[in-house]
Amino acid sequence: MKIILLSGGSGTRLWPLSNDARSKQFLRLLDSEKGKESMVQRVIRQLRASGIKAEVTVATSAAQKDSVVSQLGESVNIVTEPSRRDTFPAICLACEYLSRMHGCGPEETVVVMPCDPYTELGYFESIKRMAAGIKSGVADMIVMGIAPTYPSAKYGYVVPGGELAPGIRSVKRFTEKPDVATAERLIAEGAQWNGGVFAFRLGYMTSIAEKYVKEDSFAGIIEHYDEFPKISFDYEVAEKAANVGMVEYRGEWKDLGTWNTLTDELSDHAYGNVLTDGTEVNTHLFNELTIPMLCLGTKDLVVAASPDGIIVAEKSKSENVKEFAEALKQRPMFEERRWGTYKVIDSVEFEDGYCALTKQLTLRPGCAISYQEHDCRDEVWTFIDGEGEIVLDGKRSSVKRGMTVNIPKGMKHALKARTSLTFIEVQSGSNLVETDIRRFEWEW
Amino acid sequence: MKIILLSGGSGTRLWPLSNDARSKQFLRLLDSEKGKESMVQRVIRQLRASGIKAEVTVATSAAQKDSVVSQLGESVNIVTEPSRRDTFPAICLACEYLSRMHGCGPEETVVVMPCDPYTELGYFESIKRMAAGIKSGVADMIVMGIAPTYPSAKYGYVVPGGELAPGIRSVKRFTEKPDVATAERLIAEGAQWNGGVFAFRLGYMTSIAEKYVKEDSFAGIIEHYDEFPKISFDYEVAEKAANVGMVEYRGEWKDLGTWNTLTDELSDHAYGNVLTDGTEVNTHLFNELTIPMLCLGTKDLVVAASPDGIIVAEKSKSENVKEFAEALKQRPMFEERRWGTYKVIDSVEFEDGYCALTKQLTLRPGCAISYQEHDCRDEVWTFIDGEGEIVLDGKRSSVKRGMTVNIPKGMKHALKARTSLTFIEVQSGSNLVETDIRRFEWEW
Repeated sequence: MKIILLSGGSGTRLWPLSNDARSKQFLRLLDSEKGKESMVQRVIRQLRASGIKAEVTVATSAAQKDSVVSQLGESVNIVTEPSRRDTFPAICLACEYLSRMHGCGPEETVVVMPCDPYTELGYFESIKRMAAGIKSGVADMIVMGIAPTYPSAKYGYVVPGGELAPGIRSVKRFTEKPDVATAERLIAEGAQWNGGVFAFRLGYMTSIAEKYVKEDSFAGIIEHYDEFPKISFDYEVAEKAANVGMVEYRGEWKDLGTWNTLTDELSDHAYGNVLTDGTEVNTHLFNELTIPMLCLGTKDLVVAASPDGIIVAEKSKSENVKEFAEALKQRPMFEERRWGTYKVIDSVEFEDGYCALTKQLTLRPGCAISYQEHDCRDEVWTFIDGEGEIVLDGKRSSVKRGMTVNIPKGMKHALKARTSLTFIEVQSGSNLVETDIRRFEWEW
Repeated sequence: MKIILLSGGSGTRLWPLSNDARSKQFLRLLDSEKGKESMVQRVIRQLRASGIKAEVTVATSAAQKDSVVSQLGESVNIVTEPSRRDTFPAICLACEYLSRMHGCGPEETVVVMPCDPYTELGYFESIKRMAAGIKSGVADMIVMGIAPTYPSAKYGYVVPGGELAPGIRSVKRFTEKPDVATAERLIAEGAQWNGGVFAFRLGYMTSIAEKYVKEDSFAGIIEHYDEFPKISFDYEVAEKAANVGMVEYRGEWKDLGTWNTLTDELSDHAYGNVLTDGTEVNTHLFNELTIPMLCLGTKDLVVAASPDGIIVAEKSKSENVKEFAEALKQRPMFEERRWGTYKVIDSVEFEDGYCALTKQLTLRPGCAISYQEHDCRDEVWTFIDGEGEIVLDGKRSSVKRGMTVNIPKGMKHALKARTSLTFIEVQSGSNLVETDIRRFEWEW
C-alpha cells in the first residue's frame, strides 16, 4: 500500500499568515504533545500513530516543495508538478512516479488523501478498510464518505447504494457542490460528504493517465504534463467510474481553511509578541512580526500580522479575506525554504523605478544556497550571526558574523552554512524579480 | 507681544503612532486646505490666520526638538529644556530666553499656550483680549477660561469673581482636577475650565524665576536648570498670584489626546496602505508600515500600526493604551529628525547578546548627520537613492545610489545629502544603544 498526500492550495484564505509558498497546511499552530505542529505534520503523525506503515508520496507544487522538505524531511517522497493544474493531473503524475520510479506494480493499492483535514484516528481506520477493500477486489475504486452534519453547499456528496461487502457500500452517484435545498434532499436520501480520500489499484489509474500522456519515461511524462486536462479527479475519474465503493467515516472532520474554523480548534488565543488587557472576548491574535501587538477590549475578532500584511476581521466576516488577498497579490514576504527561512523587512520603490528590497535570511547548519548570478540587481550581505563558506566567481572563502560582502550584478555567488547563519541582504536595482536568477552547479 | 508655545508630552496615549520623539502634536492627521497637518502646525497656522504677528518661541524637550524644526522650520525660535521637569521650569526658561537672548524688556506682553488643543479662531480672539488686558494693566496675569460642557475630573477649574474690565473678570481661585461631585458644584458656581493659556508681563515671570535661579547669563540658567522646582505653572504661579484676571472662550476646545477623542475629529477613516470590505462601522485605521492592512466587518475599533507596534482596541477601551505603552517602553522605532527621518525595519538579538538593528534612513537635501564615532558597533551603509558626501576618518568622498560603505567601530564618519539621500544601515555589535556615540566638529 502506498499513500499519495495531495498538498496544494493557494494560501489566500488564511492571509497574511499563509501565502503562495506557505499554504494553510504549513502553519505551525496546532497542538501536539511535542509542541506546535502544522496540518501536514499532524496528518503524517496521525498516519504513523494509526499503524499504517505505507510509504508516503507528497504531490505538491514547486512553490511549496521547500516547505514540505522543511516540515517533513526525509520521511516522504516528493513529486513536484511542473505547473499548477488540478487534482487529476497531480494524481496521474504521482501514480506514474510510483510506477516508473519506485517499481510499484499495477496491483499495488494506492490511497490518495488531502493533507489538511482535521480528523481523529478513526479516519485512518476507515482508510485501512478502504485499502483492504481494494486489495480484496470489492470495487475498482473506494471513496471515503463523511457523515454530514448540515446541508453544506461547499462539499461534494456521495449517494450510496447497497452493501458490496461488510462496511463497504456501493456508490450510486457523485454530486458536486449542490445548492442547499439539493443538499437537504441528498442528505435525506442518505448521501455522505465526499472526503476526497480515494483508494484504487495503481494500474487502474495509470491506464487512465496513459489515455492522455503515453511516454516511455517519467521524465517524458513531466515534459508533457501540460497535456493532462485541467480537471479535478472527482470529475475525471470518480464520477465516471463504473464500480465504486464507499467506506463511511463518522468522527471529527473539519476543514480548518478559514480563520473562523481554524481558531475554533486552537487552544491558545495569542501567538507571538502579543499583549492584551484581558478584557477581550473570543479574540484570536497572531503576530509573526518582531514589533509588539497590543489588543484592548475587542470581541469576536481575529487579528494576524506577518511580513505579508495585517488583517483585522470580525470572525464571521473573515471568510471574505480570500478575494482581498488575491487583489493584494504580491511576492511572498516570508518563506520557509529547504535551506532555511527568509523574511522581507523593507521594500521601497523610487520615482524612477529603481527598487531596494531588504531581507533577513537564516541558513540551517549544513545547508546551502545554490550557485547563482543576477543580471539586474546588486546584493550586499552583512553577516550578523554564525559561520559559513562563500563562493564568489569561483573563489571560496570563509564568512562569519561582522563581515560584509558586496555582490554586484553578474557576479556568481553561493553560500553554505557551517553553523546557523543569519545575514541581512540589501538587494537594489532597476528590476527586482525572483526570475532574475541564473543557477550554476557548484561542488562543495 | 511674544508667544511661548509649550510642546511636551510623552506620547504614550496615541501609541504606536506616537512615541517619545513624536508626541501626539506632531502626528500629521488633521485636515487643512493644503493637506494633512499636525496639531502643532495647525495651531501656528491658526495663530497667523487670526492676525497675531507675535514672534513664537517653542519650549520643548531635546527628544522633540528635531520634530519641531522639521515641522515648523525657521518660523519659530526653539528653547530646549536641558532635562524634563514641568511647566513652571519650562516657562521660566523660555522667559529668560526672551529676556536674555532676544532683548525683550520687562514690559513685554507674553502669552503662554499649549500646542495641542483643537480650537476655532475665536480662541485666538480671546488671546488677543488677554494680551490687551495685560498691556493696559488690568491684572498681573490673565488666564483663559473655557466654558465647561460637562463636570470633567480631568481638567483644572477657574472660579471667576467680578468684572475687572469689559470681558475680563477677576479670578477668585483655581481648583486642580476635582472629583466629579466637586466639579458639578464648581460649574454651578460659574467656574470655567483652565485652558492652560496665560498672559503676563515678561518682568512678572522673570522676577519669579530669579527666586530660584539667579545667573548672569542664559548659559548659566541652562546650567542650573535642575534648581527650578519640578512643579506645574498652575501650582507655582497661577494659584499664588494675587491679581489674576480671566478671559472667557466659548467655542470648540478639545484635547485630541486619546484615540477616542482624536478619531472623532478626523474626516478620513483610513490612513496609509489600508483596504476594507466596506462593512466596517465606526472604525479608524492607521497604517504607517509598508505592508498592507486589511479590515473586514469590524465595529467601534481603532487599529494603528507603525514601526513601534500594532494596536487593536475597542474605542471605549483605547484610553488604556497608556499603561501598556509604558510597559512596552522601547527605543523609538521611527523618528523625524532635523536632518530627515529614520525607521527601524528589523531588530534581532542572538543568544550570546550580540545584536543587529537595520534602519532605513532618508536625509533631506543639504542636511547632514553630525561627525561621530561608535565604540561598540559596526555600521554598513548601502545607498539606495540620491547623492551626497561622506567623511570617513577625515577623508571626504562622494556617495550615491548603489554604493556600500563599511564603518567599523572607532571610525569617525559624517554624511551630508546633496539630493534627498536614502540608505539602509545595518548596525551590529554587542551593545546597540543610542548613547554609544561621540560627536566631533566637522566643517563642510
